[in-house]
Amino acid sequence: MKKHHNILLGHGSGGKLTHDLIEQLFASRFSNPILAQHGDSALLPSSTDMITFTTDSFVVDPVVFPGGNIGHLAVAGTVNDLAVSGATPRYLSAGFIIEEGFPMATLELIVETMANEARKAGVLIVTGDTKVVDKGKCDKIFINTSGIGFLSADRNHISGGGRIQPGDKIIINGSIGDHGMAIMAARNDLKISTEITSDCACLNHLIETALDGCSEIKFMRDATRGGLGTVLSELVAGKPYGLLVDETRFLVRNNVRGLCEMLGFDPLYVANEGKVVMIVGEREADAVLSRLKEHPLGENASIIGEITQSHPGMAWLDTLVGGKRIIEMLSGEQLPRIC
Amino acid sequence: MKKHHNILLGHGSGGKLTHDLIEQLFASRFSNPILAQHGDSALLPSSTDMITFTTDSFVVDPVVFPGGNIGHLAVAGTVNDLAVSGATPRYLSAGFIIEEGFPMATLELIVETMANEARKAGVLIVTGDTKVVDKGKCDKIFINTSGIGFLSADRNHISGGGRIQPGDKIIINGSIGDHGMAIMAARNDLKISTEITSDCACLNHLIETALDGCSEIKFMRDATRGGLGTVLSELVAGKPYGLLVDETRFLVRNNVRGLCEMLGFDPLYVANEGKVVMIVGEREADAVLSRLKEHPLGENASIIGEITQSHPGMAWLDTLVGGKRIIEMLSGEQLPRIC
Repeated sequence: MKKHHNILLGHGSGGKLTHDLIEQLFASRFSNPILAQHGDSALLPSSTDMITFTTDSFVVDPVVFPGGNIGHLAVAGTVNDLAVSGATPRYLSAGFIIEEGFPMATLELIVETMANEARKAGVLIVTGDTKVVDKGKCDKIFINTSGIGFLSADRNHISGGGRIQPGDKIIINGSIGDHGMAIMAARNDLKISTEITSDCACLNHLIETALDGCSEIKFMRDATRGGLGTVLSELVAGKPYGLLVDETRFLVRNNVRGLCEMLGFDPLYVANEGKVVMIVGEREADAVLSRLKEHPLGENASIIGEITQSHPGMAWLDTLVGGKRIIEMLSGEQLPRIC
Repeated sequence: MKKHHNILLGHGSGGKLTHDLIEQLFASRFSNPILAQHGDSALLPSSTDMITFTTDSFVVDPVVFPGGNIGHLAVAGTVNDLAVSGATPRYLSAGFIIEEGFPMATLELIVETMANEARKAGVLIVTGDTKVVDKGKCDKIFINTSGIGFLSADRNHISGGGRIQPGDKIIINGSIGDHGMAIMAARNDLKISTEITSDCACLNHLIETALDGCSEIKFMRDATRGGLGTVLSELVAGKPYGLLVDETRFLVRNNVRGLCEMLGFDPLYVANEGKVVMIVGEREADAVLSRLKEHPLGENASIIGEITQSHPGMAWLDTLVGGKRIIEMLSGEQLPRIC
């Protein structure tokens, strides 16, 4: 069988080339009994738990960057969206839109990464789709992943955040801004002495560790596009409570802070791909923090602030320089194609 | 609030513009209680049925064509993939990748169409994602829809096709080639006197009608990319049975046949977006055919051939001109970006 070094339009035709690509690349890497059914849809076992369902398209530029590639993001992003609702992520779909001429070797790398990440996270890629568009009609490759998780009734309260109240602590599992600045550095080919690495990671095992035996984790969200600032501002918008966080408690790596200053970005709004914000009842906050710190993805976790009775609907920041300011929702585009 | 006439990069930032776009366009049109939860993932009720899960990305060019638009396809394509497994389609996700500068009015039309089609099909759009890429980095708009359906145990046999045997009849619900040729005519701005209209439609209600009280529908597949020919050739590949279909029983509309001849296409391989191929036990074939014909989307249904004991693994065609030929799997690209 002929080996192609680049993606051809025919790979998206639904005919023999598509068939070969699916068999030789996707099915062999993503291999599992459900995918092997090869139906128009994947058949999954029923569950008495509630179902959580999410989708995300990834258009990151460049597709390969320090710390990961678009396939890494596509698995982690969707796994994390499921995990922050308190669900156990189980099944993913993968939809590829590929530009004609895209190197087969890069596609193989991406698919390999997706397979590895899915394996580590304990999820199965069970259904997929491939489209190829003419050269110049998309930029290299876009990937959509949708995901299904199962949510047991005793964790049902997490996704809505309905139990949040003043005094609850705000925890994040580590440094902010790494992913966004890794992409910016890679994109602009900046000569930075210290390489910045994306924090891209599946957080479901870390979150399981924190949730295990804990009943006071009241809300979680991953701080991706729009960064920590957007999560905080959305968290209190229209709510009968506010929040106050302390900038001195945020970990921002020196190389990330340096590049942010150079390019004029505020790390608070720079995308992360391996950071979860948790709202935890006061009594359990220290216990949750200790558990997070035991996991490699949470070793730099910290309590960064708390939910307040005062200034409802607003997120306030105690700044590094000693002042106070409101964390606004970002209005325009800070970093396009960051994920 | 400022009304934008075109999509800006900021609409994909995850900040305020994204928020406004979601509220004003997506949430208002797709409105339902599950979507209104606004979580990272949608929370769906559990079910004792098996779950079916599918994904499809749509990159059709042009995005608006006679008989529909990309939004129409995005809903129908995924609903149909679920329905042909015997499942009841229930929930969809919608992931948009939009080119900077895309007209807001066209996006509104597309979203409106998706909302209408979903309503008619009885499915809810419960979760979504929006990315915007710089001008020239994608072609207008790409949409991914993933879908969840529920499959009761008594229909479990349909998706795998394991009960197919010689003597079973092959049924299709109407004419072939309409969608593909509608796109070609629209794309090339051909001056064709009789306008060709896409057959794009959600088939789940038609399929329900056929399945209701019937136990001998053994397999279904929608004949999209690659057309009827690809479905037939895949149906028997590697199987201990073959099939024989009769070209005189295929309905090909005159304008579709004319354009196919002009452009050198074989209607057998041209995409449909509202056609399902059913394999039905001999005893029930006439009953299923009558039921299909009572539905507007099945009025031109016909039995086009049968599963054979002879020539296992091969699909044979009795041609219009009186010969016989093998229906091969299409090897390259016939029509790029048809869906």
